[in-house]
Amino acid sequence: MRSARLLSLALLLFLTSPAVASAQDIGVPVPPLGAGPWVIDTAEQHKIRMSVVARGLSHPWALAFLPHGDMLITERDGRLRWLSAGKLDPTPISGLPEIRTDGNGGLMDVAIHPDFESNGLLYFTYTKPAGGGRGSPALARARLDGHRLVELRDLVVTDAYDGNSGLNGRVAFGADGKVYMSTGGRVENVAQQPSSLRGKILRLNDDGSVPDDNPFLDRPEFRPEIYSLGHRNQLGLMLHPVTGELWNHENGPNGGDEINIILPGRNYGWPVVSFGRLYPGSRVSEHPTKEGMESPLVVWLPAIAVAGMAVYTGDAFPEWQGNVFVGSLREGGIPGTGHLQRIVFNEQIEEIRRESLLREFRQRIREVRQGPDGLLYLLTDEDDGALLRIEPAP
Amino acid sequence: MRSARLLSLALLLFLTSPAVASAQDIGVPVPPLGAGPWVIDTAEQHKIRMSVVARGLSHPWALAFLPHGDMLITERDGRLRWLSAGKLDPTPISGLPEIRTDGNGGLMDVAIHPDFESNGLLYFTYTKPAGGGRGSPALARARLDGHRLVELRDLVVTDAYDGNSGLNGRVAFGADGKVYMSTGGRVENVAQQPSSLRGKILRLNDDGSVPDDNPFLDRPEFRPEIYSLGHRNQLGLMLHPVTGELWNHENGPNGGDEINIILPGRNYGWPVVSFGRLYPGSRVSEHPTKEGMESPLVVWLPAIAVAGMAVYTGDAFPEWQGNVFVGSLREGGIPGTGHLQRIVFNEQIEEIRRESLLREFRQRIREVRQGPDGLLYLLTDEDDGALLRIEPAP
Repeated sequence: MRSARLLSLALLLFLTSPAVASAQDIGVPVPPLGAGPWVIDTAEQHKIRMSVVARGLSHPWALAFLPHGDMLITERDGRLRWLSAGKLDPTPISGLPEIRTDGNGGLMDVAIHPDFESNGLLYFTYTKPAGGGRGSPALARARLDGHRLVELRDLVVTDAYDGNSGLNGRVAFGADGKVYMSTGGRVENVAQQPSSLRGKILRLNDDGSVPDDNPFLDRPEFRPEIYSLGHRNQLGLMLHPVTGELWNHENGPNGGDEINIILPGRNYGWPVVSFGRLYPGSRVSEHPTKEGMESPLVVWLPAIAVAGMAVYTGDAFPEWQGNVFVGSLREGGIPGTGHLQRIVFNEQIEEIRRESLLREFRQRIREVRQGPDGLLYLLTDEDDGALLRIEPAP
Repeated sequence: MRSARLLSLALLLFLTSPAVASAQDIGVPVPPLGAGPWVIDTAEQHKIRMSVVARGLSHPWALAFLPHGDMLITERDGRLRWLSAGKLDPTPISGLPEIRTDGNGGLMDVAIHPDFESNGLLYFTYTKPAGGGRGSPALARARLDGHRLVELRDLVVTDAYDGNSGLNGRVAFGADGKVYMSTGGRVENVAQQPSSLRGKILRLNDDGSVPDDNPFLDRPEFRPEIYSLGHRNQLGLMLHPVTGELWNHENGPNGGDEINIILPGRNYGWPVVSFGRLYPGSRVSEHPTKEGMESPLVVWLPAIAVAGMAVYTGDAFPEWQGNVFVGSLREGGIPGTGHLQRIVFNEQIEEIRRESLLREFRQRIREVRQGPDGLLYLLTDEDDGALLRIEPAP
């Protein structure tokens, strides 16, 4: 009885304590990225060397390789940059549409058509201004003619809405030659609504028309572009180069980031089920999975704000063959904790271990790609953003 | 058709590739722990200072504070050490029982009776040799008389078994004055078996007798000591100093470490449900939770091999009030990745963020305790193990 009273007093003091930091005070000083190169120990590939290929990029978001080793890099505030022979062209590529660039919106992903060498077609995602301060994640196509875009055309313009949350979208070509776009669906129940393009993966022909085998064509309540639903914010979408599957990843709120294998017509659960909690702390759902909804392949608890994704298939790092690399913008809700993660799968594509890398740099890793040279390339989402290259240490 | 064939070829090459590292090759070189002290940035408490209080400990496992600031430290290979005024007594405390010390077994946890000042009673967990090379996790009690144990008595000797897995046990006193012991239950279905003491939390009177209000007394198939079931390997068990609840944590296999709030008679799910995968990669269960089984309060994916646990309630770190600290032996199945984690809860004891600390030291953190001085104390589970102290940086 006495101990219960003491306990209640302690609880009261604890609950009324003012010593709870507000979120804006939280974080560790992030050192400026040095000049490099750096040699880094890793668990299976031993020493790697990381170097800065380019810097001075403003919040770079995505990169794509052109057939002869040149690279395109998007900057979120609406510039498409060309990097050739390791040099960043100071003049951005011209011919982009008008882009809403406040908050999380802006120019996002870029991908080249599988027949780019013959048709020169580029695909990119961006926030299209929609009037009244609103924006619509959109997928556009254009032909790259020298250093300018021509024949620009929006292929799909998704729902317009206020605010910044969910202003994100990736674009990737599938093994079937179709073009897939992911859209953010963080808020409310939009990801489950068949009439909304938010929180979905869309599937289009390369000209933007709807393929005649899309999964919901016989269900008139669904927008015909929808390929899968129930997604939160998706900062990763790729064709798995070995299995030929489409993989995405999603940011959970407070916990519950996930990688999914995307199958036609399937429901990936957000916000009905999630492994995460809402930011104030309560669970999104009593149970994290549910019959009739797809369970994730990989889950993060705590969240790492996963961004960018690549499967390593090159020769430079034999021990990394088949490993999946993802970037982290920040871990556990703590700013200044971005890094790179490596996930190892067995032959059945089941996870067997994970390594986190580059934590000491505290950079927000936004993009991860394998180059045609078999090396890994990263973009840091910082004011002074950098393109980084990882190669074996000599 | 052609692309499908190419894909199959790529898949075949991938699956037959010899470039898959064997587990024993994996890991990053761990630098020797330096002399310190070190000043370290953290996200909410700003700069902290960590120093070495003692070193040369052989795989220390647990520590307990005596009333006047002295400290007892267990070493897994069967020694109980005394630390007084910051100096480790070179002579271990005498009077321990015979202890099986191979593999994971050995001397484990130590706790003092709430009335230690008047009765001098110590409780400790250890592996009792059981003949034929087998061992039984056991809870013993003794009186500390000077630097020797007297009146030694086993309070409970759990199931004897071969091998090393699951040879672990913590001991803690509850707010009800009862003594609780956690037991490892990794293998097979022992954690669900009512006739086995493995994979359980046991509740005893301080003399080892069974309390007359234990939850399964009216179910004769249950061992009467059982308080809760369905636990895997438990390297953390504590009385929450603010809420008065009993908390444990458990190591998942490949993912799925968890913290649980322990309630009488409840089933915590192992191995029926888990957030983790088995080491070879397959899921433990299709769904990670299930009606009728308790869901964890905190989950780790990937696993961090969680060990030791403390709630911070001191004055030295105002921003850490109410935070839970846990050690990590290794993260994601990668040796050389041990560290310390801090979990922040809201007023409803719901998780809102997590910070990882001390990663740069790559130490296996086995134990975390708050000292009577309001500072944090850690043990590193290394050949040259250390007692570390964390205080505010001046």
